[in-house]
Amino acid sequence: MLYLTRKEHFNAAHMLRNTSWSEEKNVEIFGKCANKNWHGHNYNLFVTVKGNPNPDTGFIMNVKELSDIIQKNVLDKIDHKNLNLDVDFMKDILPSTENLAKAIWQQLEPHIKECKLHCVKLWETENIYAEYYGE
Amino acid sequence: MLYLTRKEHFNAAHMLRNTSWSEEKNVEIFGKCANKNWHGHNYNLFVTVKGNPNPDTGFIMNVKELSDIIQKNVLDKIDHKNLNLDVDFMKDILPSTENLAKAIWQQLEPHIKECKLHCVKLWETENIYAEYYGE
Amino acid sequence: MLYLTRKEHFNAAHMLRNTSWSEEKNVEIFGKCANKNWHGHNYNLFVTVKGNPNPDTGFIMNVKELSDIIQKNVLDKIDHKNLNLDVDFMKDILPSTENLAKAIWQQLEPHIKECKLHCVKLWETENIYAEYYGE
Amino acid sequence: MLYLTRKEHFNAAHMLRNTSWSEEKNVEIFGKCANKNWHGHNYNLFVTVKGNPNPDTGFIMNVKELSDIIQKNVLDKIDHKNLNLDVDFMKDILPSTENLAKAIWQQLEPHIKECKLHCVKLWETENIYAEYYGE
Amino acid sequence: MLYLTRKEHFNAAHMLRNTSWSEEKNVEIFGKCANKNWHGHNYNLFVTVKGNPNPDTGFIMNVKELSDIIQKNVLDKIDHKNLNLDVDFMKDILPSTENLAKAIWQQLEPHIKECKLHCVKLWETENIYAEYYGE
Amino acid sequence: MLYLTRKEHFNAAHMLRNTSWSEEKNVEIFGKCANKNWHGHNYNLFVTVKGNPNPDTGFIMNVKELSDIIQKNVLDKIDHKNLNLDVDFMKDILPSTENLAKAIWQQLEPHIKECKLHCVKLWETENIYAEYYGE
Repeated sequence: MLYLTRKEHFNAAHMLRNTSWSEEKNVEIFGKCANKNWHGHNYNLFVTVKGNPNPDTGFIMNVKELSDIIQKNVLDKIDHKNLNLDVDFMKDILPSTENLAKAIWQQLEPHIKECKLHCVKLWETENIYAEYYGE
Repeated sequence: MLYLTRKEHFNAAHMLRNTSWSEEKNVEIFGKCANKNWHGHNYNLFVTVKGNPNPDTGFIMNVKELSDIIQKNVLDKIDHKNLNLDVDFMKDILPSTENLAKAIWQQLEPHIKECKLHCVKLWETENIYAEYYGE
Repeated sequence: MLYLTRKEHFNAAHMLRNTSWSEEKNVEIFGKCANKNWHGHNYNLFVTVKGNPNPDTGFIMNVKELSDIIQKNVLDKIDHKNLNLDVDFMKDILPSTENLAKAIWQQLEPHIKECKLHCVKLWETENIYAEYYGE
Repeated sequence: MLYLTRKEHFNAAHMLRNTSWSEEKNVEIFGKCANKNWHGHNYNLFVTVKGNPNPDTGFIMNVKELSDIIQKNVLDKIDHKNLNLDVDFMKDILPSTENLAKAIWQQLEPHIKECKLHCVKLWETENIYAEYYGE
Repeated sequence: MLYLTRKEHFNAAHMLRNTSWSEEKNVEIFGKCANKNWHGHNYNLFVTVKGNPNPDTGFIMNVKELSDIIQKNVLDKIDHKNLNLDVDFMKDILPSTENLAKAIWQQLEPHIKECKLHCVKLWETENIYAEYYGE
Repeated sequence: MLYLTRKEHFNAAHMLRNTSWSEEKNVEIFGKCANKNWHGHNYNLFVTVKGNPNPDTGFIMNVKELSDIIQKNVLDKIDHKNLNLDVDFMKDILPSTENLAKAIWQQLEPHIKECKLHCVKLWETENIYAEYYGE
């Protein structure tokens, strides 16, 4: 069993805000992230798959194909977008780093066929990241 | 003459859009950056001052004081904000990396008194940065 | 189950020296790290917690709260300090990267209450890090 | 149980090419990596061992000794070399990142005696890495 | 006057070898870089242009256009190539970092029209880079 | 004219303290850096030379030779040392980043003979660096 990881990146705007809460409570819990006029991030996304290398190629899966799957199913929907407003797969989901990592997993998992998706790791800033392993 | 640099970082939302242009022209020139629902970045800011070290301290200026000046005059106004809507010193200025670097210089320059501001270097992504030297 | 990681950093002095050994043996085993006049490092600390996101916030735990716990229980005691002389929780412990990572875990674990501490990862230089998972 | 990781780096040339395939199929599958005149990379190698710290040293193993083992058994054979032509332990193996990570594990494992080899992680570019855990 | 920088990257194989010298002298001067079977690198390329921002766009030049110029005139000719054998603009030039940086400048300079090329900075490894400013 | 830069690194302990001042004033000006029991850093050192490439080698100077000069004249004296106590060329000099950068220049400059020393850039942490250009 080997593990292969591809890094991608995207930029997006978001806000953290629970619409059932008062303004005061939103600011208390989410701080500056509750700004109604949005803020944003450069996200770094690491997608790891696992499996046995194909003897003809030496590849668990072709990293170009992995990159294309991420591009089509995640980056095309999320890059230079507003996570609260523009992204179908984030509808009604609070765009925390944790929730976004899990949602990206769910976008990718059905398309990884010749091996298995192992981990989605998402850096929101240089100091914060979330990881999801599918369970 | 020595040069001293302090790195700071902030997150912000913005869009690139010339309001005197059609939607088509905005998309043609600014591409995904013209998204009306905003996108955002983690900005890394490097501020360089120059001067001669004070013999009593070995410092051109106290880097803690430099950091405080950046915090008060730039980060408090810009971190977790919308560059088009929330920032007084960016009013009526297109928030390109170049324009933002120059505007940050103008915020900082009057407050650097014991030595001279030399350079504002602003990374918008890992692949793009702008620099301004005051002229 | 999701995993959330917060990066912090601190600077410290230390030496590696077994006081029951001769000077010769200390130099043989610890090399330059045995210098009696100390040396030091910029440490990067990655603290990972695991749990299920709270549906009201999208957070496993509030990363601001995690940062405050690290600040109060680790950084305030260790940043700009001498690991052999100044740090109560390192008393009588050889300040290797491994031992320091484990000691930091023990400082943090009692304070992580709404989810679980998963990993303490400590970089001593760009080329060396230790990890501890609590067992 | 603690984990200790040492980073090393090396440069090498290689090509990805299945000699039983036509030129067309090689280009279809391996793309630019099939260039007959070679290309190359700066590889970053992270080797992780696990064990309990020795009470006399605080070390799982002496990181200097770990570095020497990597130097002698891997870097001396592979640094500034051609992975397809020059490296005995890559003979008849397609030099994909996955296969190279596994082969490096096999070079190192017999020499890690006072603790256990846990992981070989190999970055081929800033965007791609493979990991092998020995099974 | 503002400065704008775009980072790109490419991979290539090369050798350092003066064909008018003996094998012994080549090894003496170029060390492991003289390996006849080639070695290679991941190069990071930073291209800086300077000028005044266009008031309609806030741009010195459109960074997408800068990236396209680098892609067409440099990366398409050099990425995943052998610098000694495959690259027309390196014919009869020793592919040192210095010479390669200067040659890349000469490829780019005629195509930067709305502002001026200021600097080509080329990282060969994490520890070595060359810069050329056109004179 | 081309510029060539070599990165090196070292670790050291130091304190910032003006012995002609009271304890109170030292703490007021130097903060945590005045800790009498020392603290320390991982320093990254970038040394830049300038000149014309030798047509026989493509080198301004052999980067291996540059690295050897830095090793012998700086790193051997400073790595894993105490900057206040152990380093002859820092005797009676406050070990601020600025002063250390200038002192390293003075150690290196007499030994760069086939081209010219252009810049010493010294990172004390990921957020602070000083530069000296010789005047």
